[in-house]
Amino acid sequence: MLETLRENILTDVDSEDLRVIIISGPVFSSGHDLKELTSARGREYHMKVFQTCSEVMALIQDIPVPVIAMVNGIATAAGCQLVASCDIAVATEKSTFATPGVNVGLFCSTPAVAIGRAVPRKVVPEDRLEEETLGIAQRVCQSSRPVVALGKATFQRQMAQGRDAAYATASKVMVDNLALRDGQEGIQAFIEKRKPVWSHKPENVHD
Amino acid sequence: MLETLRENILTDVDSEDLRVIIISGPVFSSGHDLKELTSARGREYHMKVFQTCSEVMALIQDIPVPVIAMVNGIATAAGCQLVASCDIAVATEKSTFATPGVNVGLFCSTPAVAIGRAVPRKVVPEDRLEEETLGIAQRVCQSSRPVVALGKATFQRQMAQGRDAAYATASKVMVDNLALRDGQEGIQAFIEKRKPVWSHKPENVHD
Amino acid sequence: MLETLRENILTDVDSEDLRVIIISGPVFSSGHDLKELTSARGREYHMKVFQTCSEVMALIQDIPVPVIAMVNGIATAAGCQLVASCDIAVATEKSTFATPGVNVGLFCSTPAVAIGRAVPRKVVPEDRLEEETLGIAQRVCQSSRPVVALGKATFQRQMAQGRDAAYATASKVMVDNLALRDGQEGIQAFIEKRKPVWSHKPENVHD
Repeated sequence: MLETLRENILTDVDSEDLRVIIISGPVFSSGHDLKELTSARGREYHMKVFQTCSEVMALIQDIPVPVIAMVNGIATAAGCQLVASCDIAVATEKSTFATPGVNVGLFCSTPAVAIGRAVPRKVVPEDRLEEETLGIAQRVCQSSRPVVALGKATFQRQMAQGRDAAYATASKVMVDNLALRDGQEGIQAFIEKRKPVWSHKPENVHD
Repeated sequence: MLETLRENILTDVDSEDLRVIIISGPVFSSGHDLKELTSARGREYHMKVFQTCSEVMALIQDIPVPVIAMVNGIATAAGCQLVASCDIAVATEKSTFATPGVNVGLFCSTPAVAIGRAVPRKVVPEDRLEEETLGIAQRVCQSSRPVVALGKATFQRQMAQGRDAAYATASKVMVDNLALRDGQEGIQAFIEKRKPVWSHKPENVHD
Repeated sequence: MLETLRENILTDVDSEDLRVIIISGPVFSSGHDLKELTSARGREYHMKVFQTCSEVMALIQDIPVPVIAMVNGIATAAGCQLVASCDIAVATEKSTFATPGVNVGLFCSTPAVAIGRAVPRKVVPEDRLEEETLGIAQRVCQSSRPVVALGKATFQRQMAQGRDAAYATASKVMVDNLALRDGQEGIQAFIEKRKPVWSHKPENVHD
């Protein structure tokens, strides 16, 4: 899909007749194919996946024509990153945006490079204060501790870097995240349609 | 006008009695005088215009008293940049903000230095998704391709720099933009009150 | 209080069972104890206060578990900085946020490191344009000129730096601010429950 997107973006990019690109449709709702991310495929393969993804996102900002994201539904993970990487985004009110990777043990560190640069970082809602706060806290507690720790540290680190350095940092972190025991457990659980059982230990799968 | 603004800002700036500056009135609605920007005036003159403009905008942030923009109407191009350069902005609901330089073939690259640092970058509106998206796409297509390409590339580049380096980058780009065949065509068309005929070629007027 | 907060944050921080921290309660409404900031305590003591504060704020972002601010009331000065330093903030509508240090002659330069990185910088309200603008201008004029000048210059400077360098810059500035005649006058007036009489001169208390 990333290669198809890249090919599509590069088609006629230097033609004078290409003036603007509109991206729409189900591409926003798809994240990475988790079956490609099991440890069976190996670290080098994982590195290639996230490098390709980062390259395509950077490409969108580097080509000479404006790219508009037209969103009407769910935009998640790399799909949400794709919206944030476009020059302009137009979305219906029923559209929702999420980076749910942490639920399968893979913190959305590369999406955060684009999203952290596109939207204000703090959200301050209404009156159900304790309910909201505890709800967020519970969602954190249902996640793997080392995955959250890696994601939090990486967010602070990459936000202080330029875009290209930030993508290099975050791409490597995605691979490190996959090598974590909990990174692989989350993906296995997703494939086997069961709830993940986190070790909460910062250990690699091959330690 | 820029020189008058500079003089006004510097008047009594070191006096203990000057404590705050309020800028208001038609100054926000005026961009550059396009007649000053034809190729007849030459590259050096253009460089001076944009350097002076960048210096005045930086000056507003560098003087020791707070500067408040009081806006009640249209703020465009360098006027919009002026609002974004002030320490505080107060505007009525009927106020509008725009950087329409691309319509006359001169992308607002220097205004984007201040605006890109003052407001969030993505806007996500309502339900008329396709209409909105196609409307934006059409406005892009009515612009000169090399002008848009130069503007897009410059935005990404200057946002990764500190303010002073960003203004140096963007000021030079404004001059390069003016040297483009389409940069001069846009300005000539504006002066002659006709629609511009873009070449869409990244060629300089003297090539 | 800062030391207590630091101890609380560090308690069990490396335990696998700690997964999220929620900060709530009156901690947000307390700024620094102004009695600690009189010139009688000396420059070294002041430096220690602001360094400790900056360290605790950075610590919140550097520990491996997410920290949620649960706010239901007034968050001011270092309390407002604390909210901005948390990974996530949830606040009721009755919550208010302010950095009122300038009223006692001590510009909130260290809070601005966190707040300037967490919220968009410009606020554009409604129709009472002149009233609003003049209200802001009057509040500026009721403040000490050298204190405002120091605060404005520091904001521009620290925003161009990385977080840790920004805190080093701002911490030193807080101490310089305290050494100003008007910095001490503001604090003395607060302690003596009278209105401050600003000198508006950029002189140190021991000059």
